[in-house]
Parts: sequence; structure tokens; C-alpha cells
Amino acid sequence: MTGSKKLLLSLLVLTAAPMCLAESATVSDEMFRINNTWMMVATFLVFIMHLGFAALEAGFTRAKNTVNILFKNVSILCIGILAYALVGFNLMYPGESFAGAFFGFAGFGINADSAALTSAYNEGYTYYTDFLFQAMFAATAATIISGAVAERIKLSSFMMFATLYVAITYPMVGMWKWGGGWLAEMGFHDFAGSTIVHGVGGWGALIAAWMLGPRIGRFHDDGHTDIHGHSLPLAFIGVFLLWLGWFGFNGGSVLSADPGGVSLVLVTTNLAAAAGVMGALIVSFTMSKTYNLGMVLNGSLAGLVAITAGADVISPAMSVIVGFIGGVLVVLGTTLLEKVRIDDPVGAVPVHLMCGIWGTLAVGIFGKADPAVLGYSLSFTSQLVGVAATGVFCLINAGLFLGLLKMTVGIRVSQEEETHGLDAAEHGIQAYSHHPFTTPN
Amino acid sequence: MTGSKKLLLSLLVLTAAPMCLAESATVSDEMFRINNTWMMVATFLVFIMHLGFAALEAGFTRAKNTVNILFKNVSILCIGILAYALVGFNLMYPGESFAGAFFGFAGFGINADSAALTSAYNEGYTYYTDFLFQAMFAATAATIISGAVAERIKLSSFMMFATLYVAITYPMVGMWKWGGGWLAEMGFHDFAGSTIVHGVGGWGALIAAWMLGPRIGRFHDDGHTDIHGHSLPLAFIGVFLLWLGWFGFNGGSVLSADPGGVSLVLVTTNLAAAAGVMGALIVSFTMSKTYNLGMVLNGSLAGLVAITAGADVISPAMSVIVGFIGGVLVVLGTTLLEKVRIDDPVGAVPVHLMCGIWGTLAVGIFGKADPAVLGYSLSFTSQLVGVAATGVFCLINAGLFLGLLKMTVGIRVSQEEETHGLDAAEHGIQAYSHHPFTTPN
Amino acid sequence: MTGSKKLLLSLLVLTAAPMCLAESATVSDEMFRINNTWMMVATFLVFIMHLGFAALEAGFTRAKNTVNILFKNVSILCIGILAYALVGFNLMYPGESFAGAFFGFAGFGINADSAALTSAYNEGYTYYTDFLFQAMFAATAATIISGAVAERIKLSSFMMFATLYVAITYPMVGMWKWGGGWLAEMGFHDFAGSTIVHGVGGWGALIAAWMLGPRIGRFHDDGHTDIHGHSLPLAFIGVFLLWLGWFGFNGGSVLSADPGGVSLVLVTTNLAAAAGVMGALIVSFTMSKTYNLGMVLNGSLAGLVAITAGADVISPAMSVIVGFIGGVLVVLGTTLLEKVRIDDPVGAVPVHLMCGIWGTLAVGIFGKADPAVLGYSLSFTSQLVGVAATGVFCLINAGLFLGLLKMTVGIRVSQEEETHGLDAAEHGIQAYSHHPFTTPN
Repeated sequence: MTGSKKLLLSLLVLTAAPMCLAESATVSDEMFRINNTWMMVATFLVFIMHLGFAALEAGFTRAKNTVNILFKNVSILCIGILAYALVGFNLMYPGESFAGAFFGFAGFGINADSAALTSAYNEGYTYYTDFLFQAMFAATAATIISGAVAERIKLSSFMMFATLYVAITYPMVGMWKWGGGWLAEMGFHDFAGSTIVHGVGGWGALIAAWMLGPRIGRFHDDGHTDIHGHSLPLAFIGVFLLWLGWFGFNGGSVLSADPGGVSLVLVTTNLAAAAGVMGALIVSFTMSKTYNLGMVLNGSLAGLVAITAGADVISPAMSVIVGFIGGVLVVLGTTLLEKVRIDDPVGAVPVHLMCGIWGTLAVGIFGKADPAVLGYSLSFTSQLVGVAATGVFCLINAGLFLGLLKMTVGIRVSQEEETHGLDAAEHGIQAYSHHPFTTPN
Repeated sequence: MTGSKKLLLSLLVLTAAPMCLAESATVSDEMFRINNTWMMVATFLVFIMHLGFAALEAGFTRAKNTVNILFKNVSILCIGILAYALVGFNLMYPGESFAGAFFGFAGFGINADSAALTSAYNEGYTYYTDFLFQAMFAATAATIISGAVAERIKLSSFMMFATLYVAITYPMVGMWKWGGGWLAEMGFHDFAGSTIVHGVGGWGALIAAWMLGPRIGRFHDDGHTDIHGHSLPLAFIGVFLLWLGWFGFNGGSVLSADPGGVSLVLVTTNLAAAAGVMGALIVSFTMSKTYNLGMVLNGSLAGLVAITAGADVISPAMSVIVGFIGGVLVVLGTTLLEKVRIDDPVGAVPVHLMCGIWGTLAVGIFGKADPAVLGYSLSFTSQLVGVAATGVFCLINAGLFLGLLKMTVGIRVSQEEETHGLDAAEHGIQAYSHHPFTTPN
Repeated sequence: MTGSKKLLLSLLVLTAAPMCLAESATVSDEMFRINNTWMMVATFLVFIMHLGFAALEAGFTRAKNTVNILFKNVSILCIGILAYALVGFNLMYPGESFAGAFFGFAGFGINADSAALTSAYNEGYTYYTDFLFQAMFAATAATIISGAVAERIKLSSFMMFATLYVAITYPMVGMWKWGGGWLAEMGFHDFAGSTIVHGVGGWGALIAAWMLGPRIGRFHDDGHTDIHGHSLPLAFIGVFLLWLGWFGFNGGSVLSADPGGVSLVLVTTNLAAAAGVMGALIVSFTMSKTYNLGMVLNGSLAGLVAITAGADVISPAMSVIVGFIGGVLVVLGTTLLEKVRIDDPVGAVPVHLMCGIWGTLAVGIFGKADPAVLGYSLSFTSQLVGVAATGVFCLINAGLFLGLLKMTVGIRVSQEEETHGLDAAEHGIQAYSHHPFTTPN
């Protein structure tokens, strides 16, 4: 009950609001208020994911680039929010001005009439809550890419790329499903965005990491690397904040405070995260005989991404399997990327793309829902089409944007800047100053 | 709909509760419960701002004073809560024992009869929720000052000063507006406290920083400084937690879970924060040709402080302008303070005082609200009076408290203590022990 | 109104659901929805406590063991959640398959029929919300122990021990009270788990710390120690997240969004935390003439643990006393443990065990509640029996599990591993890489 139903309600309201306000308000004031409150809480949780992404990315990379990463993340969040307010929201939910199932646009800016602040707009939330929840989602698409291009991308180029990707690419794909477009019509099921959000970010991450090439010193012929994350506690904080935020990301995607619906989603989400950790733990220990903290942390995110598409239609028991396989995939995917020498500093591609694909397809395998309630039957083929179409569209978009930037202003910093660190080159300061005790303890 | 309406309801209840309980309970049990739940969530969000303030202050200062800063922040929070329970709450909301529009006091301690736990007390929250939400606010007034006096104030003197400021100064100013005092009667509009909270803290920060003088090594004649923040990731965490907390600070100031009201406030709050980042980014880049992370982080807080006074009466589009100008002001204000050699380690004065004034005046420029609903017309003059009166009162209070402390126990640590760091001098430990890898990476 | 009432409702529903669904749903849909929403929020808050525990433990210990501590904490959370889903939840709430007041088991796995997602299951939450809230609690029991055994326990042994403790010991004790067992029948009052959660964790921590012995270099004959926490900012973050989480831990234990009940609990919880800080501050300053940050931080947790048993039946004024004494106890308890040379790196025993006992007994001293509402009278004797029984059972369980592990695979790492750090030995990486500035500032 995500995009299509919401659109339907919106259309009803937009066309008939003046005369049937009382009739279309099918829920009590109390019900509307609790729904809206829940959606606001979910919005806060998704907001805090941006701190999570930043902490994860900074922790998994080197201290000499930390200021750059933090700057990038806070800027992109703000640019993303403003761009989404200006055009994104109206591209993603074009409403009645809808022009075909592939593209629509409802005009610039956000604006609510008084009916849009009542349950006449939607039983679950006001127009403003709707916008804010969606805006927090939108910015994640760029943040996912940020991790994959860390420590070598030119800041200004990344900001231009991210602006376009959040303002145009993400909302267009989002419209296909959640704005009532062709994927929704086809019966593609992606509850909270394994493909629509994580896939969109993940495909962008893949092509960007490939076009940029690996960081200096990342791949030596003998297989070792010069590069290690500079603060695993920071990465750990990031992962836990992402996990926390996912309760809002998935729980809020129910689009109301429906007790049965939301609590099921929270349980499948949480079990998949826990199982993802176990999957990554077991496979990475088997492969390397060490307890790999980075893999285990990414394992939780892998489980979370994997369950995101089907958190509402997969049983708790099956969510353990979906998450566990996600955790396994993240270890194998990381190894695969290393084999083909694509440098992805935080594992954005294994986590968001590979597990996003897995999770979307898993809906076609494990998902169970009443077609009468859902409005369509779950089908593996539809899932496959959704994954493929998103992939093609995102690769073209990201490739085009990055290609143009590469030909004009360039996308990679100079070798000297990379060696000295982006903080010195672009920001003139360091993330850390002296720590008092430097003698071994 | 903040203080005056609330007071009105309280008065009604306090005088007539025994006989008209059923009548005065104008909302359903469900409505009261959802309102109260929202207010509790908002309380938690404001609580987490205290972690945000501490992280920001510690990150923007030197490692040798980190323990001192953390100690100061946790102590002040606790002293503030207890002092507010003992006297502050009853100074701020004197209710029927009201003695004139400038001062009132309802007695010591907090205590709720059974009616105070129902909607007879207020449609939006119980007495206990009311107290807790307000107590979390109160402690921020001292925490704002904490940043401006960091790295050189004597701990015991600061704790005495902060206790007085939270127990007396803040609640008295608060009463003028939110307790139904003379500013409320005059039609001064300060939705969530650009002046009443941030101004009160900001004026205290200004005079305290001026009276203490700059840190050793802060201002050299050639314009350079010896001093840099020791951990920008810590400051970054602080800023994001403050941003998160502001959703409760502003959103909770609606004093109910009203869907239209709260969601509008959340959108204006969030857009102003994002625009503040852009304002600070553009101006600081223009001025210095570097991407200044510290300025950008303070830019988000600048936008948040600026929108706080008018988050309920300024449109989303105008909130972008208000926040953007806040971000510009924080850069110019920081430069101005450096010019006059007032040392404010975290930028508390530009953020909380300058943007607090700007935001309060912006209500008189951009604010639009129905006077019939609000109970008064928005007026630039009223805003100016509120700003000026608060400034005079706070400067006198803070000047008096700090002057007395300076003459008696002293307010600044010795030169030796400052040089070695306050952690060694006052706490006997260091914030950080050895980090294993110290070879360049 | 915790376990016993809940069980009663569950039993009613389980036995009579098919025919009296409409009748047993005694609350409106709106009321059920707001209750369930509150319980979900409380669940998120308890979740974030796990990040708090990890940050606290890592901050209070040495950098060379940080990866190990983070790995331990994320793994235990996941194992705990999965084990609780598999057996724990059904051991703790055996429902109608109840086999005596000491033990019961409702079968493996979690599964909800459609009635379990309505208020027919419980007026306050769905079956899934119930499970998730309880699962977050369960994992804390192991996490509490984690701190006491840090820097020397063998990872695999700890994981086996923690699995057993969370899957068996904790839910069995939990059933005695919250599952309607013999402690509930006897009138033992432990609102949110000073004994049932913190005591269970604390007893395990005590025996585990004693069986392991102190870390190398912890106790020298002249009283000094080689060991200091490596990052007090990290510990500070941990404490504030724990405090935040406690609003859900205690506030959620009301098991509904009852405005009067929850807001009272939040106030007593918060005042006790603040008073705990003051207690620890005053006593530690008196004893050592320094402002001890570690003690003050543990003081807040001491206050929180102490009020947990009686947060619903102790007045705000008395909660200040209960919390203050908790803060005093944590300082004295730490000194006592040092005297008897039990090495507890984070102070888990003083915080969770000693203050857990104090808080449980304080219910018999300060607690006031209507026996007609509560279903039993508060009694010091009942409290004492509950504390003692839990102690004996937990010591036997933990002693047995750890004894078996010690005899077979061993529980302590080698002297060489301990000296070099567990991160090098078990994980092959370090938590921190180089920080750019290493010159004194």
C-alpha cells in the first residue's frame, strides 16, 4: 500500500476537494493525527540516517580526507532537500498533471492549501509531512554514491552530479513506482526501495567508482592494500544510526501508523539486519579465519537493504533467510569488486546495489500477499523487469552526467591532492588535531 | 499558540477544576493521548540536543580541555534540570499566583494532582510532560553559554553562574512571553525561542566571553591563531544531533500534535537549516576560496536559530530566505567578533545571538498569521522591543552574576592551568589515550 | 501494570479469541494505534541503548581492544535478537502452556495470527511490537556483562556464554515476574527491571569478572594502575544515548501511552539520572578533590538503574533521593571492587548490580501505590526475596556456563594476546589509523 494507493487518494482529493471534503475525510481526526505523528517520527529517523552515512563513510576512509567527506555529506543533504523542494517532489508525484507513465511534472516549489493539511489530502499525513518524509529519502540516493567515490572525487563535480541525480534521476525512477507510473501499473513490488532508492544509489555508485578508477595505493599486484579506515568506532556509530533510521525508512513506508502493518515491517526489518550480521560473520570467518568487523557491520546494512523491498510481504521467518543471504552476498560482492579492481571504499555497491537486487528479487520468491489487497500479484518477472529498467536508466543518467563533467571540469582530484589528502587541498584544515597521549599504552 | 493560550487554559483549570473537570476536557481521550505522546517525543529530541551541544563544543576546541567540557556539559544539564524543578518552572509559569506582568512565582517544587494528569490541565500534555519539555529547554540556555567560555573558565564559577542563570534569568524572561507576561500582552511573537531561549543564552555568551578575555594564543598581531578544533567528526555529530533535536524544539512548541501546524513547522525548520548551510557555504567560499566545514556546520545552526521565532508564521519559501540570511550572518558575525577580538570558541554569539535577533525581527518582516487566531498582530516594533528588553535584562543579570564571581572566587583559570589544559589541572585525566597507529598513512 | 496484567489479557485472548474478538477489543482503534505507536518508539529508544553500551565500553577501555569490543557488541545484539525470537520470548511469556510458576515454554519461533495484530492481543500493542520491545530488552542483559569482561575474555567463549544467558537465564527470571510467575504472584514489584534486567546482567557481570581475574597491569601493589579509557568523548556519547534510551526502557514499560503514567515515569527517570550525577559528583569530589568525569557519567546510569524498579510508584521528589543515593553507591561500589581486586573495566557491577539492588529495595521504602490498582501491596520483604532469588539463580547459571567453558575451550585469552591487544590477535586490524597532527597543540 505505498505509491499507487497514495496517488489515487491524491487524485481524488485534487479533483474533487472543494465539494466533497467532508466525504473524502474517511478517518477520524484522532486517527489522522496519530498517523501523521508516526510519519513525522519516521521522518526524523530517516534524517538521522544521513549522520549515519557520513559517520560510516568517514570512519571507513583515511583521516586525511575526513573533512572533505563530512563537507560533502552535509552539503549534499542540504542541496538534496532544496532541489527536491524545487523540482524533485513534483517530478516524483506529478498527480493529475500526469503526462504518461514514464514522466510527469506538477510545477515548481511546494505549496499546500488548507485541504492539504487535513486527511482530505491523505489519511496518513499532511502534504508537508509527505514532502519532508520523501525529501529525506531523496537525499539518501546521493549519499549512497558518496561513499563509493570517496577520497578521490573533485568536490565541486560531485556536488553538481549529486544535484542532478537527486533532482532528476531519483524522482523519475521513483515516479515509475511510487508516483503511479509504469512499474506500479505492471505490478512491480518495492515496498520501501531496495531498487527505487538503494538500487538507484547503487547503480550510480558502481559507474562512478568505475569511471573514477581506484585510489592510489588501493590495489597492489601482490593483493595487499595501503588503505585502511581511520576510525572503526565512527563507522560503528554510523551503522547503528543507519539501523535505527531504517525503522523509519521501512516503518514509515507503510504510510500510516497501522499497528499490524508497521509492527510486522519492524520485525522483518530487524530480523533481517541481525541475520545479515550472522551471514557476513560466518562467511567472512570461513574465508579469512578472522572476525572481520567491517564485514559484520556491512552485513547488517546488507540485511536491511535486502528486506527493504519486501518487508511488508515477507514473513519474519523468511526475513531471516533474506537477511542472511544479504550478509553472505556482501562478503562475496566485496571480494568480486576487488577481483575486478573497482575501488568502492565503503562497500556501497555490495551493500546497496547487490543486496538491493537480491532483495527485490526475493519478493518474487518469498513474498506472500493477497492480490486483492495489494492490487496486483507478486511476480518474479515483474521484479526482474523493475531491477533491469532501473539499472539501464540509472547507468545512462549517471554515465551521462559524469561523462559531461569528466570532459569539462574533470571529476578526479590531482595525484598530488590525493596523496596529500583532500582536506589540505580543498579545505585547508585537518579533521583532527593532536591527541595528548601518544605513548603506547 | 504557545505561552498565552497555555496559561489561559492552566488558569481556567486551576480555578475551576473541581467542578468543571468534565466540561473543560474538550478533547477525547485519544486526542489527549496522541498529543501527549508527541510532546514526549519532542522532549526526547530536545534532550538529545544536550549531547549535540557537548559534542560540538568538544570537537571545536582542543583535546587538552575535552574532559572539562564534557564534565561541564553533563553537570550543567543535571543542575539545570534540578534547579528548574525546584524554582524555575514555577517562576516561568506562575499561573494564578501571578504578581504583575514582570514577575511571578508559584512556589517551590513540582507536584501534580490527578487533574493535572488529564486534559483538564491542557489539551496537549500532562503537567509532568509540560515540566519535562520545559526543563529540557531551560538547560539549553546555560549550554549555549558554555561554548563561548570554553577552555578558560573556572569550572566551579561556571557552575554557580549557570545555576543562577537557569534558575532565575531564563525563567523570568520566559515568563514575559510564555508565562503570559508583558511581552505576551504586547504582541511579541517568538514561537520557540529565537530570543527567549537563544537570545537569552547568546547575550550571556557575549558578555561572558568579553569579561573572560580571549584564550592565550587565540589572536596574534599578524592575524593567525594557534588554536584549532581537535575533532571535526565530533563537531559534525554534534551539529546533526542538534538539527535532529530542533525538530522537537520547534515541532514540540506547537504544544500539540496538530498535523497541519507541526508539519508546517518541521518543513520551515528543515528548509531554513538547509538554506543556512548554503548561505554560509557561498559567503565563506567567496571570502576565503576554501570549503570551510566549520562555517557550513554553524550555517545549519544559524538557519535553525533564525527560523525558531517564526517557524509557525513564515511560509516554506520565505523560510529558505530567513535561513539563508542566517547562514550569511554567521560568517560575517564570526569575522566581526574576530575583528573586535572577542574569543568565542564555538561561535555561540554569531549563531545564537546574532541569528536569534535576526530571526526574531524576521517575524516582523516575513511573518503572516491571522490576528484573530493568534490573538495579536505581528509587528516589527513589538519584535524589536522584545529583543531589546531581553538584551538589557540578560546583560545586567549575567554581568552581575559574573562580576560578583570575578570579584570573589575568580572566573578564569590560571595561565599555567590554561597552558597545560584544564583536564590536567581540574580533572587529573586526559580525554584520549594512545592511538595505536601513529605513522603517516 | 506490567507482566501479570499483560499475561492475563493474553490468556483471555488465547483461550477465547475466536468467539469474543469484538468484546475483548475494549479500546478504540485510535487508542490502540496510539498505544502501539508509543511502544514502537520506546522500542527504538531501547535499541539505541545498544549503541550506547558499545560506545561506553569502548571509550572506557584501551584502543588496542576497541575492534574486539565493537565486534562483541554488534554480534551479541544480533545473536540475542535471533535467540530471543527462537526460544526466549516463548520462555518468558509462556502464556496458557504455562507449566508451573517457575518455568514455562510456548514453543519455538514467533508467529502471529491476525488477532494478534489487533487490540484483542493487548490494548497496548500488537504481538510483533511486543516481541520487538522485549527482544531489545533481552539483548541488554548480555551487553551489561560485556563491559565487565572487556579486554581479556575470549570472543568465541563470550558469544557462547551470552547466547545461553540471553536465550535461557534472562527469560526464565523474566517469566517469574513479567510472565506471571511466582515473583509476580508474591507481589514482587520491579517496574522496568532494576532486578529482572540490570540485576540479571549485574550478577553475571560480577561472577564473570571474578572468574576471569583482573587484566594485566590493572592492580599494582602501590595502588596505581596502567590502564585508562582511551576515549572519554566516546564514553560520553554512550552515556547520553543510554539516558535517551532509558526514556523508552522505562517509559515503554508502562505498556501503553497512558499520559499520566508515562509522563510520571519519564519525570522520575530523568530526575533520578540528574540526581545520580550530583551524588557521584559530590562524593567523588569529596574523596579525591578532583572532578571525576567517569564517576559522574556512571552516576547518571546509577540513578537510572536505581529508579527503574519503582519509576511508576515513587514520587518525583523521592526519585531525586533514590537517584542521588545511586550516584553515591556507584562511587563507593567502585572503590569496594578495587579493594577486593575484582576488575570491572566499565563499572558494570556498581552501576547495574549494586544500584539494581538498591533500586529494587527502594521500592519497599519509597514506593506508594494503591494495592487495588496494583493487585498487591508493596513490601520490603517481597523486594528482598526477589533480589535474593535472582542473585542465586543467576550466579548458578552464569557460574555453570562459564565453568563449563573454562574447563573446555577456555574463557581468557593468552597473556601475549592480551598484551598486544585483542584487535591484533582476533581481528587482524586496529580501530584507529593515523591522525594527521601529532605535534603538541
